[in-house]
Amino acid sequence: MVHIISKKTVSFVGQKLATQIDEQLFSKYGFKVEQLMELAGLAAAQAIAAHYPKSKVAVLCGPGNNGGDGFVCARHLQQFGFNPSIVYPKESRNELMKSLVTQCETSEIPVQTTLPSDLQTFPLIVDALFGFSFQPPPREPFTQILKTVRASGIHVFSIDIPSGWDVEKGAPADSEDVIHPHAMISLTLPKLCMKNWTGPHFLGGRFVPRGLVEELQLQMPEYPGYEQIVKVED
Amino acid sequence: MVHIISKKTVSFVGQKLATQIDEQLFSKYGFKVEQLMELAGLAAAQAIAAHYPKSKVAVLCGPGNNGGDGFVCARHLQQFGFNPSIVYPKESRNELMKSLVTQCETSEIPVQTTLPSDLQTFPLIVDALFGFSFQPPPREPFTQILKTVRASGIHVFSIDIPSGWDVEKGAPADSEDVIHPHAMISLTLPKLCMKNWTGPHFLGGRFVPRGLVEELQLQMPEYPGYEQIVKVED
Repeated sequence: MVHIISKKTVSFVGQKLATQIDEQLFSKYGFKVEQLMELAGLAAAQAIAAHYPKSKVAVLCGPGNNGGDGFVCARHLQQFGFNPSIVYPKESRNELMKSLVTQCETSEIPVQTTLPSDLQTFPLIVDALFGFSFQPPPREPFTQILKTVRASGIHVFSIDIPSGWDVEKGAPADSEDVIHPHAMISLTLPKLCMKNWTGPHFLGGRFVPRGLVEELQLQMPEYPGYEQIVKVED
Repeated sequence: MVHIISKKTVSFVGQKLATQIDEQLFSKYGFKVEQLMELAGLAAAQAIAAHYPKSKVAVLCGPGNNGGDGFVCARHLQQFGFNPSIVYPKESRNELMKSLVTQCETSEIPVQTTLPSDLQTFPLIVDALFGFSFQPPPREPFTQILKTVRASGIHVFSIDIPSGWDVEKGAPADSEDVIHPHAMISLTLPKLCMKNWTGPHFLGGRFVPRGLVEELQLQMPEYPGYEQIVKVED
């Protein structure tokens, strides 16, 4: 059972503050991307395992850190008994991203550039295309993928930001190339776009040092015991 | 509640096989040290939080990867409400180890080279001095630290290998510079030295790809749900 907290007890952050938290973690606090990505991807996989039965799952990974979280999430989902396949439309030259591809491929998690032709047989899609640094609108090859996923009606679990959303204003009106997730996990803190969202909402990223919390006056969630995720409700 | 498994259901591995698993994870399977160290340190912190009340805790970190697990463990213990201090007697020039020091220091976790002068006020010591590549006997400055810790009678929680032990044969007879832990966590799989140990024994490191499990014919623990640790009993 995932512990439930009230959304009134945590800060909702804008794009600028989310970027500032991230930059500070890697500069002043000396974190490595690999470390925090591992914790973020693990938290996402734990939220998925807490919420959905084990199944085939297509994990859509963008070329940036949000996509990296997706690769890590897929690895842990496999450990938890899920059967993940990765869709990675735009390959990054980043060395860590290349390692993540290797880790998944050697772990028998298929990595392909397009949506599976049997997409309709997947009960669940994980959306790790764009994160908190995304600026709409999405471009090809992502536009077509977002449209197809939306039209499929398959349940989508988004990591940090539903892809295609404005980080602060939320889903653009009248757009077809945007994810409308069934459930999601916010990392570190929810972004402003989640303020009025009422679907299942998890929160992970239990790694922000107290000095940063105090400096930026953040209201962090209270995690119980040694848990890495909580669920956010009204 | 941590799930309990029987020691009969997992492989106990020797030094050579432990080294082989490690090497394969980083070569063929493309893992980064940062990733697996984060999961190992998190698992250790979770086992400690599952077994001991929140308290001050001295975390003894060696200069190698076992010490790195200790730094990560200390960071997570602080997130779980413990009050960790790090003892890091021999500084490594390794770039990751330097980052780990920065992460702890900026998180207000003191890092010093010697045991705290008020060691007797610490209810718990975490031993992350030597890992599975250790060859006895220990040398200075570790010998004196091991003697002092042993003489203190304070409960020690060891990460992967109780420091000073032979990885296969266990605690050397008639030695004073060796840890006799109160509890411990094995990482990936227990080492041969743990075969006859009867104290509280946790197991973590839920990241071994099934291809490696099959290739090396390993008997891995069955973790429940999305848990990162289990407890090993007879």
